[in-house]
Amino acid sequence: MSTDDTTETAEASTTETDSSSKCGGATTTESDSTSKCGASSSSESSSGCGASSDDEEEVGASADDFKADPGKLITVGLGPGQPEGMTARAKAALADAEHIVGYRTYVDLLPDEITDDAEDIYSTPMCGEVSRTEEAIDRTLAGNDVAIIGSGDPNVYALSGLALEILESKGGSADAVDFEVVPGVPAAQSCGARLGAPLVNDTVSVSLSDHLTPMAEIESRLEAVAGEGFTIAIYNPWSRKRRENFQTCCEILLEHRDPDTPVGIVHGASRDDEETMLTDLETLPELGEEDIIDMTTTIIVGNEDTYVFEDRMVTPRGYETKYDY
Amino acid sequence: MSTDDTTETAEASTTETDSSSKCGGATTTESDSTSKCGASSSSESSSGCGASSDDEEEVGASADDFKADPGKLITVGLGPGQPEGMTARAKAALADAEHIVGYRTYVDLLPDEITDDAEDIYSTPMCGEVSRTEEAIDRTLAGNDVAIIGSGDPNVYALSGLALEILESKGGSADAVDFEVVPGVPAAQSCGARLGAPLVNDTVSVSLSDHLTPMAEIESRLEAVAGEGFTIAIYNPWSRKRRENFQTCCEILLEHRDPDTPVGIVHGASRDDEETMLTDLETLPELGEEDIIDMTTTIIVGNEDTYVFEDRMVTPRGYETKYDY
Repeated sequence: MSTDDTTETAEASTTETDSSSKCGGATTTESDSTSKCGASSSSESSSGCGASSDDEEEVGASADDFKADPGKLITVGLGPGQPEGMTARAKAALADAEHIVGYRTYVDLLPDEITDDAEDIYSTPMCGEVSRTEEAIDRTLAGNDVAIIGSGDPNVYALSGLALEILESKGGSADAVDFEVVPGVPAAQSCGARLGAPLVNDTVSVSLSDHLTPMAEIESRLEAVAGEGFTIAIYNPWSRKRRENFQTCCEILLEHRDPDTPVGIVHGASRDDEETMLTDLETLPELGEEDIIDMTTTIIVGNEDTYVFEDRMVTPRGYETKYDY
Repeated sequence: MSTDDTTETAEASTTETDSSSKCGGATTTESDSTSKCGASSSSESSSGCGASSDDEEEVGASADDFKADPGKLITVGLGPGQPEGMTARAKAALADAEHIVGYRTYVDLLPDEITDDAEDIYSTPMCGEVSRTEEAIDRTLAGNDVAIIGSGDPNVYALSGLALEILESKGGSADAVDFEVVPGVPAAQSCGARLGAPLVNDTVSVSLSDHLTPMAEIESRLEAVAGEGFTIAIYNPWSRKRRENFQTCCEILLEHRDPDTPVGIVHGASRDDEETMLTDLETLPELGEEDIIDMTTTIIVGNEDTYVFEDRMVTPRGYETKYDY
């Protein structure tokens, strides 16, 4: 299951752009296969992947530069990725969109009837969320109806917020583009469903990616919730550059929770290569180097009441404290 | 937007059961219109609403009492409620189910092609989750393919965990019933989408219903997260019997967060009577008695970075700390 946060680069890859309709932003193909994610400098107005930095002026276009009335801008959550995981509303919204913008892996998962119907598809490899979102905004301001797609829910560690931030910085109006968010099933719930019923009560979602959030803040949040009865969905648990974040997270959890607390790991939920593992908190630190744990994995940590029944995690809601059954 | 937790009773109502196919559980219609939710005693093996307590022995049936091979048991999340909010997978799963079991309001929202196709529908009013779930399990053990439906996601404050608990207590096997959870869009994300982009970073979901979780634990959880950078989705914020839970929650939040922290309130998301309000933490306590806040409302509290842009909540992911736009 691909994470809702794609700021990490698993491998370098090139950008594909197919852009022939009206657009105020960059449309050139970038042949530089070296990802620059994580190495951004504040002097760059566009991140390395996606839009070419040679077109800084066009990518930096403001709302006033466009003569046309803006089109409509929506963000759409695809759920885990396969068409069956999309809501009917998401499908209808994508069918209405003229331009679809997204990370290549998710564009590739769209059903043909949607991609064939779109006027244009702008896809980029992992990374380049800022330039990709700027591209989407520019196309909207140029008059196209644009849909930004993402896995899971388009709010959860995704680009809905960034779209509004960039729109505002360009002097655009959310009302003028009839901005709409079409929700989807987040990774925590897609992965929770594969594990049984782990997320039945109060739950926390935490991302271990410190690309945009300082690790000190992430640690503080983990410390705060580890000693309480929350189940915890961990997004972006591991990358080669951030092995220690995963280990630190495990240490914090083990300070506060029993070592035999059930833990579920889901990689590639609903994909052909889906892998699921049930383990416990004590074993979790050893699994960081295993293939099942990477940036696209979701890890679900039980609370003190969570148990395992026939290889399924169960977190009681509390009915057993009030009812006999 | 109806809450994913339906343990509170908004009004007394009668039980409807239409049950003519093979079933090991209670099938009588209960004419007692007084809800007994919240007044359960541990000597009752079935809660007041739903199955008649006269059929305690049948409701208390164990897996060994059934001669047939069990059918398949699934739990299905409907999302906010309208058909467009359901995933294709949820629709297909419901089309395959022979019996559909659920809270009446959600059964009523199912499209005709699903309800017409089902052999039997077992619906109950709000309350009676235990007896309703027992009924679903018994029907499965009797050989029917059964789907338990709920709003949002069937894990989040919903019945997937209870289904496994009851199945186990009856000596049943999750493998034998090919137990499956079909995820849906949780209320936090459905409501977040109506408010803009509030839930972009680490998020907590907390329910203020202390029917099954002691208020002391809920307060402890709120205290733990209020001082951290989590956005907070509050489920079941208010009921006539639990006004003080809402006030306590507001007090805790105000101890730790700025009074001008944006707060979004969504009632009846995606329904005809949907109501949305943007306010702030300082104003929130006054709104407890307003119609917009009841058990079916979801309240979303921003973190220290959340702001409002054209009446939309925006919680930055952190891109602004690394990129210029």
